[in-house]
Amino acid sequence: MSSAPPQTPIVDIHTHIYPPSYISLLKSRDEIPYIRQFPPAKEHRLVILPAEDTPSTSRGRPIGAEYYDIAEKIAFMDNHSITTSVISLANPWLDWLPPSTALQTALEINTEINDLCTLYPSRLYFFGTLPLSAPPQSILESITHLKTLPHCRGIILGTTGLGSGLDDPSLLPIFHALANAKLPIFLHPHYGLPTSVFGPRGNDYGHVLPLALGFPMETTIAVTRMILSSVFSLVPTLQVLLAHSGGTLPFLAGRIESCILHDAHLKSEGKLQDINGGQRKTIWEILKTNIWLDAVVYGDVGVKGAVGASGIDRVMFGTDAPFFPPLDEEEEVEGEGGKKWLSVSMNMDAIRSACGAGSEEEKAVLGRNAIRLFGLDLPASASTSDHVDSHVRERGSDGAGERDSNLAP
Amino acid sequence: MSSAPPQTPIVDIHTHIYPPSYISLLKSRDEIPYIRQFPPAKEHRLVILPAEDTPSTSRGRPIGAEYYDIAEKIAFMDNHSITTSVISLANPWLDWLPPSTALQTALEINTEINDLCTLYPSRLYFFGTLPLSAPPQSILESITHLKTLPHCRGIILGTTGLGSGLDDPSLLPIFHALANAKLPIFLHPHYGLPTSVFGPRGNDYGHVLPLALGFPMETTIAVTRMILSSVFSLVPTLQVLLAHSGGTLPFLAGRIESCILHDAHLKSEGKLQDINGGQRKTIWEILKTNIWLDAVVYGDVGVKGAVGASGIDRVMFGTDAPFFPPLDEEEEVEGEGGKKWLSVSMNMDAIRSACGAGSEEEKAVLGRNAIRLFGLDLPASASTSDHVDSHVRERGSDGAGERDSNLAP
Repeated sequence: MSSAPPQTPIVDIHTHIYPPSYISLLKSRDEIPYIRQFPPAKEHRLVILPAEDTPSTSRGRPIGAEYYDIAEKIAFMDNHSITTSVISLANPWLDWLPPSTALQTALEINTEINDLCTLYPSRLYFFGTLPLSAPPQSILESITHLKTLPHCRGIILGTTGLGSGLDDPSLLPIFHALANAKLPIFLHPHYGLPTSVFGPRGNDYGHVLPLALGFPMETTIAVTRMILSSVFSLVPTLQVLLAHSGGTLPFLAGRIESCILHDAHLKSEGKLQDINGGQRKTIWEILKTNIWLDAVVYGDVGVKGAVGASGIDRVMFGTDAPFFPPLDEEEEVEGEGGKKWLSVSMNMDAIRSACGAGSEEEKAVLGRNAIRLFGLDLPASASTSDHVDSHVRERGSDGAGERDSNLAP
Repeated sequence: MSSAPPQTPIVDIHTHIYPPSYISLLKSRDEIPYIRQFPPAKEHRLVILPAEDTPSTSRGRPIGAEYYDIAEKIAFMDNHSITTSVISLANPWLDWLPPSTALQTALEINTEINDLCTLYPSRLYFFGTLPLSAPPQSILESITHLKTLPHCRGIILGTTGLGSGLDDPSLLPIFHALANAKLPIFLHPHYGLPTSVFGPRGNDYGHVLPLALGFPMETTIAVTRMILSSVFSLVPTLQVLLAHSGGTLPFLAGRIESCILHDAHLKSEGKLQDINGGQRKTIWEILKTNIWLDAVVYGDVGVKGAVGASGIDRVMFGTDAPFFPPLDEEEEVEGEGGKKWLSVSMNMDAIRSACGAGSEEEKAVLGRNAIRLFGLDLPASASTSDHVDSHVRERGSDGAGERDSNLAP
């Protein structure tokens, strides 16, 4: 039903893992994030959010091998005809580490994930993770380390930054270092919105309100704060891949732009001009020069919005696995090659419906954009005629590859 | 630049006014919402939000005649080639009235606005306002009263309902009464999100974050709570017009639907079936049968998303006037018939770009949908050939007109 023809490379740029050493760390803790058994149940459960850390034996979620076993990731990819994945540490990343051990832990976890990628040549790449609680110099050192890891293709980042958001001027040296290293940021939500905004009956609706609304709204607020603080004028080559098709940024871009143009305070402060002088970079320009979007939006209205906002060459397939597994076997969707996860089929169907089945646009979103933008090699089994793309440069001598010139206009 | 050909009726379904008696009420108060002078300045200022009630002489916004003088509304309409407007009381409506006086105030203000409409036959209709702080029986009485007012075409409603949101079961009798009276709800934000979510530098960005993000997110959360509490199964003929193109609902609809389908709690509670038995009404069905959207989204990505979600026959032009005035004359846009507000031109341009200049789709969104869905008569000066529409029924004997059969499937 949803699987693309086998000759089309499919690249999943939004797929998570907790590598074994991170699992060990979580098992050693007794406050969130942590992993624990709740007797008499024998299963281990992962608790990462304050709202789910309730006195219940069913708090959080059961954590099976699909969360930490790289062989399970490969099996999931095979089952869904995914050629290559760019894996990333799942939230809440390393934000909670003690400053004294954060750098060492980051170096170890990034090395460990790179080693996992080495096991499956050309099938796995990864986004690294920064030790944000460490001193600034240590964060920069971790970026230098990531440049030496051949499978690294960017970093995953939450919305809190150093503790007060991504519009924090203290982050600018880090953004500069990432831009210079040609490492895009994969901006991903974790904290959502305060529970109060979902009202007194929020618990009646399971996790729908925080997951469906809180997560994308968190992402939208974070990137809008980056835009308003002129990050994309101060670091013009910074590239940010936004989770969940930008949260709601494509849809709200017009309203944000209008609110800026009608704001008396911004005008009186001279902020309707660019911080470097000259014309202000509009949201629409930023969307087309600094933003990439995944296509994890579960509907063709969303995919069309993402493509309309950032362009057909900047939107990329993702799964969000191992999150959103089928509730049970009934929820799996029968297709070519066996049963698929409903969540994956929804996203593949949305791309097909928005782009046209078998179209060049569909192929771009399913895989070609990721191959070009992240400079990926494909496994030999994937069609070579399909993945050759003039935008992919030769792999550089540093082993980290060279990405699309979009990274360094 | 933005004005449509004069023969195309343009109907503004999102445009506000504070009628003179409401202004008097606000002037009599010393806590929000209130209107006051802050000497030495002579101007009156309107303060409606906690965040803007700061110890400053520039708190809130200056309130000129465009906020309360109906002649100014007509002049604005003439200047922008708007044939007919459906005016509504601006936020925060009547939520704050003492329970003992709320009904009487609502009856008076609704009568007053209806009388304003009488002054300009076929050019003005209105959305009434409910006395939400009054006892339930009084709220129902106000709905009965609205049915007697010939220019009433629905009611405007905030997101708090009776104090705990629109998923409150106590609202169901009111929703039933509105559906039976064929009075759609115009759902409009006011409270936004808690200031904390915008971070420590939010004040640096003027009103952009609360207005551009807080407002549409508030609307999205409110309507999603209605959906999750099965309002549209329990009151299947209820029609809700969502401000600002649904906040972000069209873009997030796919993610909301996916989160519902993947929620173990909802499944275990039997909530993946419809509350009446049978198949659950999906968000996409609700969008196409219970939701109307304005086109106040300031960009073609948003208009296309609104049309994609609810259909070309359910999206309607609006201005949000008198909010978002030009910052000064430089911001006005030169066009046929003189200078236009930039905010209006942005929305007209977005519709034109999304639908195609001069297309039937553009005409539908600019005016025909509103004429049909709200059963509007057009002024004699508007082209009669253009506004005749088989969906408009003859005006009923109660004087309130009959609307599209969508209202009573």
